[in-house]
Amino acid sequence: MDNKVTPKILPGFMELLPEEQILFNRIKDEIKNVYESFGFLPLDTPVIEYSEVLLAKAGGETEKQIYRFSKGDNDLALRFDLTVPLARYVAQRYNDLTFPFKRYQISKVYRGERPQKGRFREFYQCDIDIIGNTSLDIIYDAEIPAVIYNIFKRLELGDFTIKLNNRKILGGFFEYIGLSDKTADVLRIIDKIEKIGADNVKTELIKLGAGDNTRRIMDFVSISGTNAEKLEKLKSLGVENDTFNEGVSELEEVLGYIAMLGCDEKNFEIELTIARGLDYYTGTVYETFLNEYSALGSVCSGGRYDNLAEFYTKQKLPGVGVSIGLTRLFYQLREMEIIKPEAKTLVKALILPMDKSVTDFALSTASLLRSQGIPTDIYHENKGMKQKMKYANKTGVPYAIIIGENEVENGIVMLKNMNTGEQSAVRPTELANIIKGDN
Amino acid sequence: MDNKVTPKILPGFMELLPEEQILFNRIKDEIKNVYESFGFLPLDTPVIEYSEVLLAKAGGETEKQIYRFSKGDNDLALRFDLTVPLARYVAQRYNDLTFPFKRYQISKVYRGERPQKGRFREFYQCDIDIIGNTSLDIIYDAEIPAVIYNIFKRLELGDFTIKLNNRKILGGFFEYIGLSDKTADVLRIIDKIEKIGADNVKTELIKLGAGDNTRRIMDFVSISGTNAEKLEKLKSLGVENDTFNEGVSELEEVLGYIAMLGCDEKNFEIELTIARGLDYYTGTVYETFLNEYSALGSVCSGGRYDNLAEFYTKQKLPGVGVSIGLTRLFYQLREMEIIKPEAKTLVKALILPMDKSVTDFALSTASLLRSQGIPTDIYHENKGMKQKMKYANKTGVPYAIIIGENEVENGIVMLKNMNTGEQSAVRPTELANIIKGDN
Repeated sequence: MDNKVTPKILPGFMELLPEEQILFNRIKDEIKNVYESFGFLPLDTPVIEYSEVLLAKAGGETEKQIYRFSKGDNDLALRFDLTVPLARYVAQRYNDLTFPFKRYQISKVYRGERPQKGRFREFYQCDIDIIGNTSLDIIYDAEIPAVIYNIFKRLELGDFTIKLNNRKILGGFFEYIGLSDKTADVLRIIDKIEKIGADNVKTELIKLGAGDNTRRIMDFVSISGTNAEKLEKLKSLGVENDTFNEGVSELEEVLGYIAMLGCDEKNFEIELTIARGLDYYTGTVYETFLNEYSALGSVCSGGRYDNLAEFYTKQKLPGVGVSIGLTRLFYQLREMEIIKPEAKTLVKALILPMDKSVTDFALSTASLLRSQGIPTDIYHENKGMKQKMKYANKTGVPYAIIIGENEVENGIVMLKNMNTGEQSAVRPTELANIIKGDN
Repeated sequence: MDNKVTPKILPGFMELLPEEQILFNRIKDEIKNVYESFGFLPLDTPVIEYSEVLLAKAGGETEKQIYRFSKGDNDLALRFDLTVPLARYVAQRYNDLTFPFKRYQISKVYRGERPQKGRFREFYQCDIDIIGNTSLDIIYDAEIPAVIYNIFKRLELGDFTIKLNNRKILGGFFEYIGLSDKTADVLRIIDKIEKIGADNVKTELIKLGAGDNTRRIMDFVSISGTNAEKLEKLKSLGVENDTFNEGVSELEEVLGYIAMLGCDEKNFEIELTIARGLDYYTGTVYETFLNEYSALGSVCSGGRYDNLAEFYTKQKLPGVGVSIGLTRLFYQLREMEIIKPEAKTLVKALILPMDKSVTDFALSTASLLRSQGIPTDIYHENKGMKQKMKYANKTGVPYAIIIGENEVENGIVMLKNMNTGEQSAVRPTELANIIKGDN
């Protein structure tokens, strides 16, 4: 074998070293655990689906980015999100599911974007959705942000704010001022207020032809204060529009339920400029920001939609859900050093036999520890003790267990705390408690 | 939306209903936990790689089955196993890894096979490998089957047998009798002994031109008895070949270490007809069988190889590993009803508020339970109590918690054990202990 193939992966694909992977998995597991604690059921859909099915709705950017190919007579594509497969699944298995159907899926999705810093072509999405059959109580709109609240509490990434809005407020308001036909454009403009500032928004609105309504729109998006104050101001705008008023009362109700779910109100904020995807969300919408790192943008977004699976079934399936783009979030958190690897290994105890003669004792000690729930490894390579300790240091294991002939004779082992350097002679049966006690 | 797209997935792709998914995940988690308890580190490689990289070695069937496509200027393919990505990874990150490098990967792989019952185009492999730098102690050949032993003990699928052989025994033996050039053919024939019987093997060997050696080959593969007896018989064959003798002594050593690792010897059996992949394995090889369901074939196979990454690097990287084809195994176990769903939901407690007036109490009870580690759901739909109990039954939740105005006044809830039908009035703070006590 003289001609080697260069070992490399495609740009835009994340592949981690073990210590980074351990950290990534820890975060992924915490998200999963919170999802499960709220009663979401696991789902695992295929990565490859029929293009016809995946692209039933798509268009524009999505179609351009999709990985699409033929195999035999089939026109296939890789999933580009987890919502379309969910819609297909619920339509397909409608008769087998119990509604409200709450599912989570934590899986990789694929988008053939031009690779750039922080943009990935393969990335994990962590999705939850609650799907109703025909109808779905507004209280579920509070459950979703309560889940997100619990996740970000647990992840300890500092203060965070879940911003809420209701599309009906926006839609009703624009209907009332007679700008319904320009809703999409107006929303696109006011959505930029944080980025470009109020003055530029005003200019763009005038350019769009908002005319006399420009001031009213600006008054509307400038509503400030506490959540309660914002709600009061919305009510006192005198907007005589049913959709608008329904939106305001839904938003009020959702905030009430969020408090009842034990969430601290300070983490929730009404933000009237949030619109999210225009052709999809119809009620409550969410975005999540890390207060100290607002440059990251929203790290978790979603909302309420009227009809999950209209492209596949006549059943009306309203739902509410949210998605965490974990790969991107992880990348950003690492780049900004907000998180860092906590352990280079999952191993808690590394056994270092001094020579081959103690192998039996070393192996049975390892088995004992594993049976007591201590992830344990043994270093078997035929090296000197210095080399073995070097290996122990390099792997980052918290405890080394040194076994020589003396130890075997006395039925003990030498336990070394790799952080403090402390050594002590310990009976094998006592090891697990000491090692566990340190965690 | 009048024209609906039929919601369906490709044949050969497994997608489960929630109760099946819960069972699948439980098995996957047990495998992962045992892997981690032995100190294997997690790895998660991309699904899509450069075709040039993935196919550096491949040929024949693999190339035909691969999902391969272009995107932009790139010739891409989906991984068809986890070994090739591991080889690429170790070669690529050689300087960042500590050796012996022990990694596990539990991921989906892709093969565009003709779909048939029990054959999948997308399936999970659960791989472990231990990679040495230049050399790797023989004791690791015992660690791998010890891991497998612990997994199948935990999975409780009845008695199982891990069959072992050493390729050096086969290679050395054929060298000794002067049939080295026909090794591949002879191995292919004797590998079928369980399927076609000794007589047919003999006929095929004669047809191949084994001549006088046919009897010697048959004597060799017919060696029987306990592992110790088989080893004795192998030694007494009088084969004067270094490779052969090295193989016999390695096999003996490996069995000794397996016993030291606390594994019951009765689960391990020398089986001289096992050869596995011819161009890859070079020492110890394994296959695993469920004794009561031998028709399933080997459910976990692997072995020792000399050079993991020769297509990517000049570094000599010997290793030993094994793979569980989980999707296929799960399918077979379900088909034969060896396993069945244990729970329809992960939820332990379902709260049923009698009406909207008790929402606050219901939500705070849910939060309390979740904070105490009890996965909890609430049914919020505006239905009668009978409908709500029907929902509780349908979801298969073990406990329902009924809350009405009376309960709120008295600061209690009505806890119903859904299996026994038993009901009792309980303070919210006592719920977690009762529910946990039942698990």
